[in-house]
Amino acid sequence: MAQKREPIEYADASPEVRAVYDDIMATRKIDWVNNFWKVLAHDPPTLRRIWSNIKEVMGPGALDPLVKEMIYVAVSASNGCRYCIASHGAAARKKGMTEAQYSEMLAIVGLANETNRLVTALDVAVDERFR
Amino acid sequence: MAQKREPIEYADASPEVRAVYDDIMATRKIDWVNNFWKVLAHDPPTLRRIWSNIKEVMGPGALDPLVKEMIYVAVSASNGCRYCIASHGAAARKKGMTEAQYSEMLAIVGLANETNRLVTALDVAVDERFR
Amino acid sequence: MAQKREPIEYADASPEVRAVYDDIMATRKIDWVNNFWKVLAHDPPTLRRIWSNIKEVMGPGALDPLVKEMIYVAVSASNGCRYCIASHGAAARKKGMTEAQYSEMLAIVGLANETNRLVTALDVAVDERFR
Amino acid sequence: MAQKREPIEYADASPEVRAVYDDIMATRKIDWVNNFWKVLAHDPPTLRRIWSNIKEVMGPGALDPLVKEMIYVAVSASNGCRYCIASHGAAARKKGMTEAQYSEMLAIVGLANETNRLVTALDVAVDERFR
Amino acid sequence: MAQKREPIEYADASPEVRAVYDDIMATRKIDWVNNFWKVLAHDPPTLRRIWSNIKEVMGPGALDPLVKEMIYVAVSASNGCRYCIASHGAAARKKGMTEAQYSEMLAIVGLANETNRLVTALDVAVDERFR
Amino acid sequence: MAQKREPIEYADASPEVRAVYDDIMATRKIDWVNNFWKVLAHDPPTLRRIWSNIKEVMGPGALDPLVKEMIYVAVSASNGCRYCIASHGAAARKKGMTEAQYSEMLAIVGLANETNRLVTALDVAVDERFR
Repeated sequence: MAQKREPIEYADASPEVRAVYDDIMATRKIDWVNNFWKVLAHDPPTLRRIWSNIKEVMGPGALDPLVKEMIYVAVSASNGCRYCIASHGAAARKKGMTEAQYSEMLAIVGLANETNRLVTALDVAVDERFR
Repeated sequence: MAQKREPIEYADASPEVRAVYDDIMATRKIDWVNNFWKVLAHDPPTLRRIWSNIKEVMGPGALDPLVKEMIYVAVSASNGCRYCIASHGAAARKKGMTEAQYSEMLAIVGLANETNRLVTALDVAVDERFR
Repeated sequence: MAQKREPIEYADASPEVRAVYDDIMATRKIDWVNNFWKVLAHDPPTLRRIWSNIKEVMGPGALDPLVKEMIYVAVSASNGCRYCIASHGAAARKKGMTEAQYSEMLAIVGLANETNRLVTALDVAVDERFR
Repeated sequence: MAQKREPIEYADASPEVRAVYDDIMATRKIDWVNNFWKVLAHDPPTLRRIWSNIKEVMGPGALDPLVKEMIYVAVSASNGCRYCIASHGAAARKKGMTEAQYSEMLAIVGLANETNRLVTALDVAVDERFR
Repeated sequence: MAQKREPIEYADASPEVRAVYDDIMATRKIDWVNNFWKVLAHDPPTLRRIWSNIKEVMGPGALDPLVKEMIYVAVSASNGCRYCIASHGAAARKKGMTEAQYSEMLAIVGLANETNRLVTALDVAVDERFR
Repeated sequence: MAQKREPIEYADASPEVRAVYDDIMATRKIDWVNNFWKVLAHDPPTLRRIWSNIKEVMGPGALDPLVKEMIYVAVSASNGCRYCIASHGAAARKKGMTEAQYSEMLAIVGLANETNRLVTALDVAVDERFR
């Protein structure tokens, strides 16, 4: 039994999996599906569940769509998930993120990781005015 | 020698530290300094250096000031730094962040942490189109 | 001096290192040693110490051997250690883990990472009944 | 606007939120709701979404219910989420986890965090037999 | 069954646990045992195993004892473990760490956390000269 | 627009970027610049800012230069940043770090990651004597 799960292409997918692929392409107005979903497809309930979460959370809401993608990229950059940076970075660029904005976001991610450690290590008490 | 560093108040601060406190208050147009800086003040070069970084990175740039604060909060929430969530959350609220926007940002932070782990654990290959 | 430490094969190993390799193979009833140990072998006291810890912690105890391997894989997946997922995943499969069980474990790892961030960011107080 | 979100009690909850509380109590066969849900209730769509995920992922499946809770606790312990350790630890104890099993699980969590770092730092190559 | 494990005092400890306490006090030339060991004492094999690891790793070796404690504190500060910062920070101070050295170490921890994220997010290729 | 940022060589760099490269080489007394800076060069203000931080923090101070590099490597090893381990590991070796010292540092990193999780999961109270 191989450990590594290979992407399941549309042609080889079950009707259940195809239905999710179709919804991804329709929602995103694109004609292909990226590897994350094709690998998740080995576990159809998880594929369906995660897609439904992404669709709900990343759909129209109180925040601008580009801002939402940038927050996703920022967290992924902080966590060091290269695939997630690549895929959500592409989505953000498609929604208008410039290189200058990307650089600025990365600078914030880096600096926040620095100050987060200083604050935690120094065990700084929350100011009364912030409560 | 006590381990815990207590905040150094303005009245007790050296001229070097006061100069940074003054710049923080002038830049932010407020009349007080929050605990993070007062604890960092035990190490004046670090106080000056971190403030200079924050001032440069969080100052005017390619991204909207509110978006910048939200990215800072998102990374801090992902890293679990309560003080940073409180202080940058307050800054974001001051710049107009609504509760609905805060909730949406947190939902993205949570979901990104979930998918980041799935992607990394499944070792998904970056799609050619994302390169 | 090369930085990267290459695996030390049995034939090239010192008697001290061979003794650990022999014990690994005897304990696991296999006829080979995986790369982790061969790289650790550059530092014999650490090789011996880590193996002795693994042997004690992962040996017979209060939990089912398969459950123990799955907990190891779950933590490694959460931490994004690909080698550890591969090696302990193989051990879990050998002890009977099915693909459906692996998928279910990964789903829990992902979801826990999501809720862990929400709980920490929202600073939820521990319920009296949980104390 | 206060930053800290206080738990929303059943008596003060909207019908939409009460419906989720009711489902939590019915599914778990208990007569109270823990703080995590009461704090999430400030954001009803997230409350409903996260509960629906937990219900699906932690419901009947390929793994024993106790094993599922223990994997949840193990990841939460590795991530240092005290609330999550307390709540899922209570659930695991209710499903039969003994103190000896809890100790053994924690020992695995600690050791995996040690070896995860050694493996990553030493950049150990995945053995051919593990692919 | 209470979840929280209270420290087990010497007077209430089993002979097996007392033997570890005695060895801790003798090795460190002190007349008390800190809470970490008293909480681990609920699980004697783990108490003994972790102490034996600490004794071996933190004992005399190729690095200066103060440097070893500072590395321990640096990792703990990076991981946000307050207890570990407090206990190993106390040990480092006892071995001569000055406040200036502590500040400098924290500055490195913060900066490394910043650059670690930038490097990982930007997926910088390792230079040939570093291999 | 390509996502991956390629290193910017000296010959192709702007005067602003060259000035930083020149300072890096002069400060370190070397005749080349490593990839981290060449990739950061796509964002000159960040290049200048991060270099200025590194120069200040890693310059002469209260700690021995080799100890400073080792703390940098230890944090990077704990965070799993391979590039950072390679680059700061090379710097540490140049300053005299032996293989035995490197092994000992890694052992501390691994052990601290183990005990950090045990302490956090068990929620050990800070001893009065450590305050």
